[in-house]
Amino acid sequence: MNLVTRREHDLLGDRDVPADAYWGVHTLRATENFPVTGTPISAYPHLIDALAAVKEAAALANQELGLLEARKADAIVAACREIRDGKLHDQFVVDVIQGGAGTSTNMNANEVIANRALELLGHAKGDYGYLHPNEDVNLGQSTNDVYPTAVKIATVFAVRGLLKAMAVLQDSFARKAVEFRDVVKMGRTQLQDAVPMTLGQEFSAYAVMMDEDRSRLDEAVELIHEINLGATAIGTGLNAPAGYAEAARRHLAAITGLPLVTAANLVEATQDCGAFVQMSGVLKRIAVKLSKSCNDLRLLSSGPRAGLGEINLPPVQAGSSIMPGKVNPVIPEVVNQVAFEVIGNDVTITMAAEAGQLQLNAFEPVILHSLSESITHLRAACLTLAERCVDGITANTEELRRTVENSIGLVTALNPHIGYTAATDIAKEALATGRGVAELVLEKGLLPPETLADLLRPESLAGSGAPQV
Amino acid sequence: MNLVTRREHDLLGDRDVPADAYWGVHTLRATENFPVTGTPISAYPHLIDALAAVKEAAALANQELGLLEARKADAIVAACREIRDGKLHDQFVVDVIQGGAGTSTNMNANEVIANRALELLGHAKGDYGYLHPNEDVNLGQSTNDVYPTAVKIATVFAVRGLLKAMAVLQDSFARKAVEFRDVVKMGRTQLQDAVPMTLGQEFSAYAVMMDEDRSRLDEAVELIHEINLGATAIGTGLNAPAGYAEAARRHLAAITGLPLVTAANLVEATQDCGAFVQMSGVLKRIAVKLSKSCNDLRLLSSGPRAGLGEINLPPVQAGSSIMPGKVNPVIPEVVNQVAFEVIGNDVTITMAAEAGQLQLNAFEPVILHSLSESITHLRAACLTLAERCVDGITANTEELRRTVENSIGLVTALNPHIGYTAATDIAKEALATGRGVAELVLEKGLLPPETLADLLRPESLAGSGAPQV
Amino acid sequence: MNLVTRREHDLLGDRDVPADAYWGVHTLRATENFPVTGTPISAYPHLIDALAAVKEAAALANQELGLLEARKADAIVAACREIRDGKLHDQFVVDVIQGGAGTSTNMNANEVIANRALELLGHAKGDYGYLHPNEDVNLGQSTNDVYPTAVKIATVFAVRGLLKAMAVLQDSFARKAVEFRDVVKMGRTQLQDAVPMTLGQEFSAYAVMMDEDRSRLDEAVELIHEINLGATAIGTGLNAPAGYAEAARRHLAAITGLPLVTAANLVEATQDCGAFVQMSGVLKRIAVKLSKSCNDLRLLSSGPRAGLGEINLPPVQAGSSIMPGKVNPVIPEVVNQVAFEVIGNDVTITMAAEAGQLQLNAFEPVILHSLSESITHLRAACLTLAERCVDGITANTEELRRTVENSIGLVTALNPHIGYTAATDIAKEALATGRGVAELVLEKGLLPPETLADLLRPESLAGSGAPQV
Amino acid sequence: MNLVTRREHDLLGDRDVPADAYWGVHTLRATENFPVTGTPISAYPHLIDALAAVKEAAALANQELGLLEARKADAIVAACREIRDGKLHDQFVVDVIQGGAGTSTNMNANEVIANRALELLGHAKGDYGYLHPNEDVNLGQSTNDVYPTAVKIATVFAVRGLLKAMAVLQDSFARKAVEFRDVVKMGRTQLQDAVPMTLGQEFSAYAVMMDEDRSRLDEAVELIHEINLGATAIGTGLNAPAGYAEAARRHLAAITGLPLVTAANLVEATQDCGAFVQMSGVLKRIAVKLSKSCNDLRLLSSGPRAGLGEINLPPVQAGSSIMPGKVNPVIPEVVNQVAFEVIGNDVTITMAAEAGQLQLNAFEPVILHSLSESITHLRAACLTLAERCVDGITANTEELRRTVENSIGLVTALNPHIGYTAATDIAKEALATGRGVAELVLEKGLLPPETLADLLRPESLAGSGAPQV
Repeated sequence: MNLVTRREHDLLGDRDVPADAYWGVHTLRATENFPVTGTPISAYPHLIDALAAVKEAAALANQELGLLEARKADAIVAACREIRDGKLHDQFVVDVIQGGAGTSTNMNANEVIANRALELLGHAKGDYGYLHPNEDVNLGQSTNDVYPTAVKIATVFAVRGLLKAMAVLQDSFARKAVEFRDVVKMGRTQLQDAVPMTLGQEFSAYAVMMDEDRSRLDEAVELIHEINLGATAIGTGLNAPAGYAEAARRHLAAITGLPLVTAANLVEATQDCGAFVQMSGVLKRIAVKLSKSCNDLRLLSSGPRAGLGEINLPPVQAGSSIMPGKVNPVIPEVVNQVAFEVIGNDVTITMAAEAGQLQLNAFEPVILHSLSESITHLRAACLTLAERCVDGITANTEELRRTVENSIGLVTALNPHIGYTAATDIAKEALATGRGVAELVLEKGLLPPETLADLLRPESLAGSGAPQV
Repeated sequence: MNLVTRREHDLLGDRDVPADAYWGVHTLRATENFPVTGTPISAYPHLIDALAAVKEAAALANQELGLLEARKADAIVAACREIRDGKLHDQFVVDVIQGGAGTSTNMNANEVIANRALELLGHAKGDYGYLHPNEDVNLGQSTNDVYPTAVKIATVFAVRGLLKAMAVLQDSFARKAVEFRDVVKMGRTQLQDAVPMTLGQEFSAYAVMMDEDRSRLDEAVELIHEINLGATAIGTGLNAPAGYAEAARRHLAAITGLPLVTAANLVEATQDCGAFVQMSGVLKRIAVKLSKSCNDLRLLSSGPRAGLGEINLPPVQAGSSIMPGKVNPVIPEVVNQVAFEVIGNDVTITMAAEAGQLQLNAFEPVILHSLSESITHLRAACLTLAERCVDGITANTEELRRTVENSIGLVTALNPHIGYTAATDIAKEALATGRGVAELVLEKGLLPPETLADLLRPESLAGSGAPQV
Repeated sequence: MNLVTRREHDLLGDRDVPADAYWGVHTLRATENFPVTGTPISAYPHLIDALAAVKEAAALANQELGLLEARKADAIVAACREIRDGKLHDQFVVDVIQGGAGTSTNMNANEVIANRALELLGHAKGDYGYLHPNEDVNLGQSTNDVYPTAVKIATVFAVRGLLKAMAVLQDSFARKAVEFRDVVKMGRTQLQDAVPMTLGQEFSAYAVMMDEDRSRLDEAVELIHEINLGATAIGTGLNAPAGYAEAARRHLAAITGLPLVTAANLVEATQDCGAFVQMSGVLKRIAVKLSKSCNDLRLLSSGPRAGLGEINLPPVQAGSSIMPGKVNPVIPEVVNQVAFEVIGNDVTITMAAEAGQLQLNAFEPVILHSLSESITHLRAACLTLAERCVDGITANTEELRRTVENSIGLVTALNPHIGYTAATDIAKEALATGRGVAELVLEKGLLPPETLADLLRPESLAGSGAPQV
Repeated sequence: MNLVTRREHDLLGDRDVPADAYWGVHTLRATENFPVTGTPISAYPHLIDALAAVKEAAALANQELGLLEARKADAIVAACREIRDGKLHDQFVVDVIQGGAGTSTNMNANEVIANRALELLGHAKGDYGYLHPNEDVNLGQSTNDVYPTAVKIATVFAVRGLLKAMAVLQDSFARKAVEFRDVVKMGRTQLQDAVPMTLGQEFSAYAVMMDEDRSRLDEAVELIHEINLGATAIGTGLNAPAGYAEAARRHLAAITGLPLVTAANLVEATQDCGAFVQMSGVLKRIAVKLSKSCNDLRLLSSGPRAGLGEINLPPVQAGSSIMPGKVNPVIPEVVNQVAFEVIGNDVTITMAAEAGQLQLNAFEPVILHSLSESITHLRAACLTLAERCVDGITANTEELRRTVENSIGLVTALNPHIGYTAATDIAKEALATGRGVAELVLEKGLLPPETLADLLRPESLAGSGAPQV
């Protein structure tokens, strides 16, 4: 295929790489060593952008400290900006699951940036005597500080997308809470009829859940702003001159617009994956709540005739290849599956984090992979749930009211007036005979009719009624 | 408390142990080192019995090979038999979660057996010159072969109890399948009304699931019969004379009545936890199916008036401290929780198994602990589900039949006769207007009345109908 | 056994309970229905105390609102205080894993408090006409607000114990960081020799990890201070009069000394388990880091002759029943196992939280159980790790220094001076020939001797060197 | 983009699809509804082939039963064979994570096959009057029997690939076991020096583990041969005529070459995911063992100078962008990460299986997705581990022998001759003084020199020595 090649050299010897490739020998070996998923790291554009941002910041810091001549620095910076503009992403070809603690990802970035910078300087790709992937692009850096820093920045940007999607979903729920504020229905505990409430209250709970989860995610993403750039190999800062860590951080903050902070203890920061575990834990929490909400939506819309039939989800596709007219809750179902995936990913991340040894965690690539999947899939799930499901939900208002009026759960409201023991007897008789609670209370003369009528107004039973969104 | 003590000695120096304790200095240190759960290993009587069986088998093998004089062997065997008769279990005091790969459990057993044997020989406890915990009771053994062997035997016996409980539950489901064989109802897919079936078919599925799970558990327990006794420290059999492994296995098989097999590769067998991971995986499978069945039971019995109300679970306790007459599906709920615990335990076991290093897995104690919990809790869950729930379930037969007759899902049966497209139109109209499928088909002249009536008999729609138990 | 009984009555009929039992018929049925773990809820004293605190606060609020006469309120309060003083805990006998969303736990508390209050009022146990478990002790309450509130308070107190233990462990690590501040050693990434550092830096990382984890736990416990008392059955506050929620919260805050807040949306708060999922996620994070630290300690202390042999853990028990003199890292090992358990528990909690339906999560008992286990076992693990392991660690200082001087990793420091490519050649030759880096650099005349000596001083290579604790 | 379109119609109305697309309106809606992963189902070629095989078998059965005219059947069969020959895979565009229990996948298949068959019959795509996706291609079928059947067949073929890769890895380990059969080394338990063994024994354990795992996988794949084709919607076989299930199974078995069996209870088989949970459990077991083996390889090759340095992994890429000459164990590291992913996927599959409700599990798509990932990634991991790592491992034989001769663990062999207590004293003294075991035993006159020499020959200490592969 690539008949024209150039020869590159590394620790292990010589290899030919395609002449038009911006990546080089290190990347070539990595693609051969890790044929796992078939998905290249370019699948995570936030990561590619973040790598370019880190390399740009490092070059600027090195130039500022007099370690990198302006000509080289300018070329590196220009190459990084092209990448951050979306160019050359297809040159980031190493597998998302890779050994080596991200070294291959860092090498891939070094090579692409070096070769593009060489071009900008008027040299041929591979002419590393003029500008070297490791000695210039990677100057003062190590995979062990570059990679975690880039992963964090990529995560921050990915999470921002998720936060927006969650806000969209929260709004959808909140609008329904208002729309359904007067729709009275039976509340249920343990799937058994409990006491009345409004459908608006039910949806307000989903909105509030989403709101709380956003707050937790906001807190978790804060922790991700602490970086270890300048730590080099193990946190001792070997080969990074005085002032480098701070200069690089300052440039990186300016480039990304993020309030980045350098960790106080770089040895700890270089080996620690706590912030990723925490982030994944919060994503799992979001998944748990989303899944619960979708379970509810599927249950409340069960039917159309042999189910609860309280609400109707908008039909978005035919539900069956054999059962005509059948429409299924496919949107909540896909959200459930994303939630299961996120929960599984959390276990993967947990194991990878636990497996770190001594001064480094070699398994950050699978952490990045799982985290990225969880974040982007949750984002898609929130949006599709909001737009293709929640926004179109309607209520079977009349049917819901009838169920309340016919319920045994009404008797709970009489507790304070007739006592738990008498109320229990009424409930038992109602259940056994199929008769109504009000009818039995009146028959037994336990309360005067007007008192009873007042106590049993569903609207008052539903408490303040107003959904608290 | 224990004012009277005896002094014992180990690698670290002297310590006083209560004079009346059968355990000694090694056990004492272990109780101080591992104050984790507060639950002693005596909580797992199968383990204590299995340890005694292993020690008895080892003593007999050593005697047979001329390594242990008859007097000592007899005393050790007698002590072991007392333990297997249920005595001295309270002397097994080390914590179920302990460091050291089970060494403390083995030491605890060696000490209790030695001291009881000393008594039987007319000596004082602690007089190890006459019979020594390590040199005699542990002769030719290592924790690393004794402990895994005992854990396997204990697991086999615990699993037998679970298998029996599963058979009880399967029978309960199967009896209901027969009882409900003529109860027609709507089947549901994705919680939406699908096509008719019988309640008997529904319960037969639970019975079959249980049956399949029993087969899988039977297969998994087979793998547990392979032991590494004779491997000593790392599988090379150091210090175990020729013939010892086979003699010990033979005695142990006779004592336990189990067809035990010595692993072909003892180095592998000594470090491997695969059989435990497999066993836990099967327990997880059982948990998944049990939980799914209980979810169904809770859903089908939801109501009494605002739920599906298809079946009634027998009430076993009042359901609410505030809602009179409320009865909840507490038995399925407790089974769900056991299932969640078993699934969590599987992750614990997985991590512990993965953490083994080189010639040994040091984390078998938590594997044993989690496995024992899963097995015994599942056993209790199956029994309480069978006896306190399934056996008393009743069906709301009339209501179920009405739902079928009123269903839109009936139209599926007309597919082969009027086509998917026409059937879809009928379904849409029925849904929109609230009218019945049969009525619409007749009105449109799509089928002659008698053909229609024949096609729509619920009984025929439910297929063979006979539950296949 | 209990020949003398009294007869009690509930929804299902009459049952005899032991005359001297403070619990009653609801508790009796629960013990029969849930024979799962054999562990009664009294195993969690913080929960019993919290239940009593909630009941006391409710009684005071009810009295204040004129709903409960002073005589009854006083008796209830007195009974609750006895329980909070540690009395009657043995009367809390329902199983820790139970169906019914905690109803049985709440009923158990109502009955014990009612019967003790009856005694204090001069009545016989069971004479509920004078003071009723549900109508008086549970007045204005539901399991669904009482139980989550009590679980939260119990969790706060349990977590405080854990936080203290973590501080103890952090101090232990920090003291070692200071002690070992001048001990130079090789840092390792991916288990391969990297560049020099100090052992003090290594231990400072463990201290910082613990410090960060404490901060995260502090944040998570904040979320637990939001309660739903006053929500009653489903959050609508049915049967709880105006002012009750606030009065009860105020009293409960005073009793517990905790800055409790009532949730803004009680419907949401009643069904939500997010705070527990978050808490468990943070416990999992702590477990991950603890496990990683213990893996390191075991690795660094491997040997004594065929391992890394960098540090020595204090011997706390003999390590083998067959290998004389062997001492094992049993304390880190037990901590690893606790970590695996906590990680498994997180999955259990996740599944239980996800399984909530509509207005309630019926599975909070297993959430409480798993959370309590995780918290108390982590606490024990931190303390035993600090006191029985870290405090006694010593370093093999001379051996460590020799390893640094002999290392190839020194060449990294020459990168900025001789370039990555030349440095790679030196490294390759050193590896192939077994010769030293300095020797080769000098031989090739790459650097003048004095420059080289300066660059290769291990102390300077270790960066700032001072551990940042 | 696709300016030329054709109009199609479904339950929800009209939609334009690209004129050249083989998929139709159902597929179009699904791609809009499930924008989750961006990965189309064509990523799983085994699944596409299996779907085509099922559709072909169904057409043949329908023709045989006189339900489908030969002309249509022939065209469907021809289209399916093209797909099984690798054509049209790019037309399978719905997302791998999708709601609807696989309906969209089935619909996608029906549409592609129908449109290709239409072409073969000389009609235009979309001209469903001549041959209809649902009425002809899907005749007598439901997603609920087609999809699980296809998933099972796809899984069988994927697992065959994994089994082969595992055999390759087993061979690699076994060859090393033979190569290293005379290399004596210290065995370790709990990372502490234990007793001698051979490196061949160590590698034989890895080979045996792999062999056992293959047996377990073979057993698990057996269970996957049970299908529910003919069950239609819920297992009652509605709309599938007598004889259809058996005819379809027969044709499918012939087409695939697999000994397929129709489940005895189709209602159960249609809702059950037990076989997938079991399969995933076995994959997890494999992952656990693989990960443990890789942990060992990384540990044994740690160094080059400050590690155990027992073996050398072949270098496959430069290990560091900053540390010259550093080579890392990147192949074992990538295998570890695959293992963590597989373990996480098992949790996802477990949750999805548990979430099935009543007559169907709606979450099989994520089960398929996770299972496929686990199988294909494990396959890649086994191959890369065998070929790029194990095959090139070399041993540091001389160093290993020295460590044995210098070890304290030798004293264990003296236990039977001088007793555990005396041996413990020797061990303590050796450790304290740095002296050798043999020297001390002689000095104390505990054994005659010749006896001692004989006992301490490392070769004899390693037991039978011959690796049992």
